[in-house]
Amino acid sequence: MSQALQQNGHIKMVRHPYMLSKAQELIPDLWHHDILPHAIVSAQPDSQQIHGWRANVVNTRDEFFQHDLAQGEHVIIDFGQHCVGYLEFACEAVGSPPDAPAHLQFIFGETLPEVVEPFSEYNGWLSSSWLQQQDCYLDELPNRTRLPRRYCCRYLRINVVALSRKFQLRFTSLKLDTVTSASLANLPAYNSADHPLTRIDDVAVKTLKNCMQVVFEDGPKRDRRLWLGDLRLQALVNDVTVKNYALVKRCLYLFAAMTREDGMVSANIFVKPQVIADDTFLFDYALFFVDVLQEYVAATHDNATLADLWPVAWRQIELAMERVAENGIVRDSNDWWSFIDWHEDLNKQAASQGVLIYCLNKALELVRTYDSSKVTWLEAQIATLKSAALRELWDQKSGFFVSGSARQISCASQVWMVLADIGTPESQRQLLAKLQSHPPEIQMNTPYMMHHYVAALLQVNEREQATQEIKRYWGAMVEHGADTFWELFDPQRPDFSPYGSKLINSYCHAWSCTPSWFIRKYQL
Amino acid sequence: MSQALQQNGHIKMVRHPYMLSKAQELIPDLWHHDILPHAIVSAQPDSQQIHGWRANVVNTRDEFFQHDLAQGEHVIIDFGQHCVGYLEFACEAVGSPPDAPAHLQFIFGETLPEVVEPFSEYNGWLSSSWLQQQDCYLDELPNRTRLPRRYCCRYLRINVVALSRKFQLRFTSLKLDTVTSASLANLPAYNSADHPLTRIDDVAVKTLKNCMQVVFEDGPKRDRRLWLGDLRLQALVNDVTVKNYALVKRCLYLFAAMTREDGMVSANIFVKPQVIADDTFLFDYALFFVDVLQEYVAATHDNATLADLWPVAWRQIELAMERVAENGIVRDSNDWWSFIDWHEDLNKQAASQGVLIYCLNKALELVRTYDSSKVTWLEAQIATLKSAALRELWDQKSGFFVSGSARQISCASQVWMVLADIGTPESQRQLLAKLQSHPPEIQMNTPYMMHHYVAALLQVNEREQATQEIKRYWGAMVEHGADTFWELFDPQRPDFSPYGSKLINSYCHAWSCTPSWFIRKYQL
Repeated sequence: MSQALQQNGHIKMVRHPYMLSKAQELIPDLWHHDILPHAIVSAQPDSQQIHGWRANVVNTRDEFFQHDLAQGEHVIIDFGQHCVGYLEFACEAVGSPPDAPAHLQFIFGETLPEVVEPFSEYNGWLSSSWLQQQDCYLDELPNRTRLPRRYCCRYLRINVVALSRKFQLRFTSLKLDTVTSASLANLPAYNSADHPLTRIDDVAVKTLKNCMQVVFEDGPKRDRRLWLGDLRLQALVNDVTVKNYALVKRCLYLFAAMTREDGMVSANIFVKPQVIADDTFLFDYALFFVDVLQEYVAATHDNATLADLWPVAWRQIELAMERVAENGIVRDSNDWWSFIDWHEDLNKQAASQGVLIYCLNKALELVRTYDSSKVTWLEAQIATLKSAALRELWDQKSGFFVSGSARQISCASQVWMVLADIGTPESQRQLLAKLQSHPPEIQMNTPYMMHHYVAALLQVNEREQATQEIKRYWGAMVEHGADTFWELFDPQRPDFSPYGSKLINSYCHAWSCTPSWFIRKYQL
Repeated sequence: MSQALQQNGHIKMVRHPYMLSKAQELIPDLWHHDILPHAIVSAQPDSQQIHGWRANVVNTRDEFFQHDLAQGEHVIIDFGQHCVGYLEFACEAVGSPPDAPAHLQFIFGETLPEVVEPFSEYNGWLSSSWLQQQDCYLDELPNRTRLPRRYCCRYLRINVVALSRKFQLRFTSLKLDTVTSASLANLPAYNSADHPLTRIDDVAVKTLKNCMQVVFEDGPKRDRRLWLGDLRLQALVNDVTVKNYALVKRCLYLFAAMTREDGMVSANIFVKPQVIADDTFLFDYALFFVDVLQEYVAATHDNATLADLWPVAWRQIELAMERVAENGIVRDSNDWWSFIDWHEDLNKQAASQGVLIYCLNKALELVRTYDSSKVTWLEAQIATLKSAALRELWDQKSGFFVSGSARQISCASQVWMVLADIGTPESQRQLLAKLQSHPPEIQMNTPYMMHHYVAALLQVNEREQATQEIKRYWGAMVEHGADTFWELFDPQRPDFSPYGSKLINSYCHAWSCTPSWFIRKYQL
């Protein structure tokens, strides 16, 4: 997910040096792997392709390294897969000694449109600084260059903007030095007889891998940052794949390292040039600290970390409970207080109630063994919140939970009521079935929300439907050529972007990697 | 001067390792000096200004360092003087933690038009890669950056292309780390009562200084390269100012380090990433190797260097003499065989005849003490060439020397006949006077050609007219605001560029720095 428009420069933040030092001890080494060009392609407009362009192979890698480029020429390199890393290249002048700098422009695209639709026409509301490009002026040839920034691409366009009349340019080497903190060496094999699921698992694992850097990033193109909501889902997939628990632990400590004065954890963390918590705070994301910690401890039995971080987790519960009104429902507001989904019209109240109950349930699992003095209180709160939800939010007439003063009916509200375990298994199953038979106007926009829908289906043991949804949604991305899963995907609106331009969407996004968790955890 | 369109990739070049090693031993250390912003200016169109723009101060340096820049803003920094060096800056985010890279564009201009007239509209025939710009994407803030390329500017425009809605940008420091191999610490004082001449000398010395790097460069913006024709004039000014004879020696060895198979020296040399002689060969420039060597030995009495380089110098004479036809005149041709001046219509034959005789005279001075066996031969050749010039090129009717089959009359031909010492001092004086009273159509286009005109005037002892010409021509550049002298200046055509755009002209150019030599050598 991307940045909120919360601006809270006035809020006092508190650093916690012990937490920070624990986090910094765990900075991972990165694995490096060279990726060479797969082919040289041309881009043809093609309305049959989801993003409007088709790549045609026009040259091999070997032909590229023998080709002399003249001023005004360009090439599009297809690396054959989504990559995260550093571009290294060597080039030389062909002809007379180079009597002017060589001006090259590099444009990196996770998708083909990014390297063929001019960035100058971009008018989304996220900063255009995310569009990946670099102009290089090579004063000396032959030249060997490693661009200092990390890029994220499947396609690389090189525009030979200017040479001189006396020489041409030839690339003698070019590669991506790709990086990740995920080691696939120990990846547990997953071989289903179901080929589409196997392929979806491949793509999901690749998505996780490319997001795993010195933190779990949301997206390696954008925002390249640790968000709590993404971390939560990545940690699940990590648990059934590469099992880098040290990185999960590091990220938990990072959220604990700088909190709001009242102890609320930020929605996201910057780690360079120093660790800074963003001034964005989200009701749901803060609560998920409890969930991530619970899952981490369940997998590792790392009680030392639990001891360090439990007070932070508990504080998120206390703060969330302060938002519960007299009627037992979390107070709604019109600002960007809870995430839930990227949806302009979605009312977040009911779903946030669900998140709160869900996280209290996770806390309950922790305190049963760790701090039994809190069991009774938690059980009481959960009961109160559940009954309030049924009393205040259930709409008998429509057969759906409603949200906000306008009593909005959305998918998200129903899904989170199920995940909060409100009602009986049978009523939950019926509610989810009704989402299919009577789809509300407010649908789900992101793989993030789709994850919760599939999780709900599996919670009520609808394995077959869950599998179908995975194939229908994530499988469609694969059929559209994705080799990592996208931040945003609406089969009906392939150009959908909450940011105003598909060019700035992330096409390798943490929150989309969860099919591997479903497939492996539930043996689909 | 700039590149020729000679393309001689087929020519075999020979490396001379001894010469190269001598050159490399003499790589100079550079002097560093920090230059801070002088003021922040705005640019206003102003037809009264030679380049069409006027700078108005709008902020002080201190105000700049306290100003928060928003996306879309720009600033123009005036460093108050022409600088050659490396940009270093530090900046920080103001507001929320920076949630997107900062995209900055830096545009460097020796003149104001370079930072206000869009480079995208450039359509000159020299490579646009010379236009000085750099886009930077700062992933981390606060940030401290040193741009790796060397730039040449008085003005620096910073465009804040993209930030995010959550932060602004503030520069906390910014400077140019300027470099030169000229030490002004030991600059002999020159204080004339003639204030305009003193100012012209200041600007000329600055011009030399900014062109003195690890070689004598023609221009630090473009071509940043060692040209023999520029070296010759720089070495003269060096002799009366900063006296870095080691650098002159280094440059002579560089020309000797890689020659054409037949021994001809190239017109210019590249030194990075390795020493390579260009495949451009010019009749006049090759001969000037003799002149530079003679002047160097006269100043230093460095006979060891003379012993090393004399065979190279002598070879240039032999090769030039091969171009002398039966009638004693150098053969003309339509290609770019001799430089003389940047003038599309100029016929080079007569002037080249003059250059040949001039350089034979310089050789004669050398051989009198060094290789007396050649005196007789040289004297005979000079006599033959001079009489041939008078016989074949003098046009009694017009009272001018003519050049080429079309018998063209140009300033350049007359000037070089005088510098070749053809005729009597009185006839030479009359010829130069006639250039004033009856100006030929083919005038002088560059400070380079103007230098030779003033040198000719001083040769015939017209000190007052020489001084007037210096004030009229170079003084006008100073009045137009030059703080280094320009590659090209025609008071009648301020936009004149042989390259199709004033933006690509060099505004600190080696061949324009010679007023200091005249002023100091002749005590004007």
